[in-house]
Amino acid sequence: MDMNTITIIGMGLIGSSLARRIKQGGLADKVIAADNNLDVCKKVEDLAIADAVTNNLEESVKDADMVVIAVPVGAMGKVAQRIAPHLKKGAIITDTGSVKAAVIDAIKPFCRSGIHFVPGHPVAGTEFSGPEAGFAELFDGRWCILTPLPDVSARAIEEVTRLWEGCGSMVEIMDVKYHDLVLGITSHLPHLIAYTIVGTANELEDDIKSEVIKFSASGFRDFTRIASSDPTMWRDVFLNNKEAVLEILQRFNEDLTAMQRAIRKGDGDYLYRRFGETRAIRKAIVDIGQA
Amino acid sequence: MDMNTITIIGMGLIGSSLARRIKQGGLADKVIAADNNLDVCKKVEDLAIADAVTNNLEESVKDADMVVIAVPVGAMGKVAQRIAPHLKKGAIITDTGSVKAAVIDAIKPFCRSGIHFVPGHPVAGTEFSGPEAGFAELFDGRWCILTPLPDVSARAIEEVTRLWEGCGSMVEIMDVKYHDLVLGITSHLPHLIAYTIVGTANELEDDIKSEVIKFSASGFRDFTRIASSDPTMWRDVFLNNKEAVLEILQRFNEDLTAMQRAIRKGDGDYLYRRFGETRAIRKAIVDIGQA
Repeated sequence: MDMNTITIIGMGLIGSSLARRIKQGGLADKVIAADNNLDVCKKVEDLAIADAVTNNLEESVKDADMVVIAVPVGAMGKVAQRIAPHLKKGAIITDTGSVKAAVIDAIKPFCRSGIHFVPGHPVAGTEFSGPEAGFAELFDGRWCILTPLPDVSARAIEEVTRLWEGCGSMVEIMDVKYHDLVLGITSHLPHLIAYTIVGTANELEDDIKSEVIKFSASGFRDFTRIASSDPTMWRDVFLNNKEAVLEILQRFNEDLTAMQRAIRKGDGDYLYRRFGETRAIRKAIVDIGQA
Repeated sequence: MDMNTITIIGMGLIGSSLARRIKQGGLADKVIAADNNLDVCKKVEDLAIADAVTNNLEESVKDADMVVIAVPVGAMGKVAQRIAPHLKKGAIITDTGSVKAAVIDAIKPFCRSGIHFVPGHPVAGTEFSGPEAGFAELFDGRWCILTPLPDVSARAIEEVTRLWEGCGSMVEIMDVKYHDLVLGITSHLPHLIAYTIVGTANELEDDIKSEVIKFSASGFRDFTRIASSDPTMWRDVFLNNKEAVLEILQRFNEDLTAMQRAIRKGDGDYLYRRFGETRAIRKAIVDIGQA
């Protein structure tokens, strides 16, 4: 089947980047952009990155061969509920959520027979939000992880794979729970830590806060970039990947307590050993060209 | 006084970058590079970034108008003890340590009358180490913080200021304890956190570790860069800025516990509010051109 019409629901950083790429690459005959928010719809119209723009979600999907839901994780179920009755028979639904188990639980119940749901997660983004922040190259050379359930058709997986490969991504099939654990470590915990440390600095007295901003280049700056990501998206990630995040957070806390104890006791050998061990992981990342 | 001869002790990233910049900028007639380690001396000779290279620290300082000690914080006292008896009357000593109170305690006792000590901290660096990693532009547009004690001559402060301004840096005078607290927040804590989180990942089972490396681009990658910094340097920072680091770490821990509790309870309002607050700091950093 050729993708004649693709509807993207949610025109933030990810949705708008995807629309741009599909248009530029001719990956579908028609791209329909849908968003609940009228201001966002207006911006998307001005940007001219879709063939049609609407805030009527129900209407937006009725001719779609594929629907990509690119809203915050906590809003996925509601969107699925609204659009489900209006989907064409044979339509493919996919999503872009950073959490997969909770999103599957939210969307799957609304997928009646003849609707093919392929959960997806393009592992790409920036600290910016909204349709103006998107760009067609966002997915180039990035991974897109699909976590299809066993009962979905191979053709639907192929179509979604083709879309993301068309966007320049490398596609990986992964188990749902495994995805949520791996991303809990590589993405969710780092974001939580960054938000926390920047929050700690934010509560300092005003004079020292201005010095912190001034001398941010010494390490802190990288955390502020991560911690300026979209609050709604990240709130939903933590509410919806609670189990994996809390598990990995507990391990992190134990390790941090050990570091703290070593500093307090003046245990230089422990610190030196720990600080040396982490270089191997960096080297591995550099070696696979992801640095 | 013109700086005829500058001796740099410790030819790592910072010392070797400084040597390069002084030579390129003609900031002194002669640059002498000294390092305890014969392999490092050999590399510096091959790189041809100094007028003379020696592992004899005592000998290296005898004609120096200024000596810059650029060794890890924990080795500062030992170096000062060795070179002190050999310094010319009127010589200026400065250093590049990331911690100031402990370094002053280590160096000051060896500064006899007629020797001018101006503690310094170029807030610049990369995750790489050693003389090959240095480059002349490292200090361009970066801050250099000086924490002179009240009894030092204004001329000595001026000379050290002129050196760092000659290297492209902006010089700031700061109180010793205030420096250690501000840098504890902007630099030491972020490094400790990054080392810890990468260490936590490092202890995962091998199969999941390879996935973590593969999908590192989603946030984790930034932490691995920070956590690949020189282990000796950072061990010494934490052993020597214990008080400030433990204080700010305690605040961070309290904030992280609150985040953890909010995730466990599903308190989305709390998370949303905290995640929104941190954007202001990022904006301030972007606004002053340090992003």
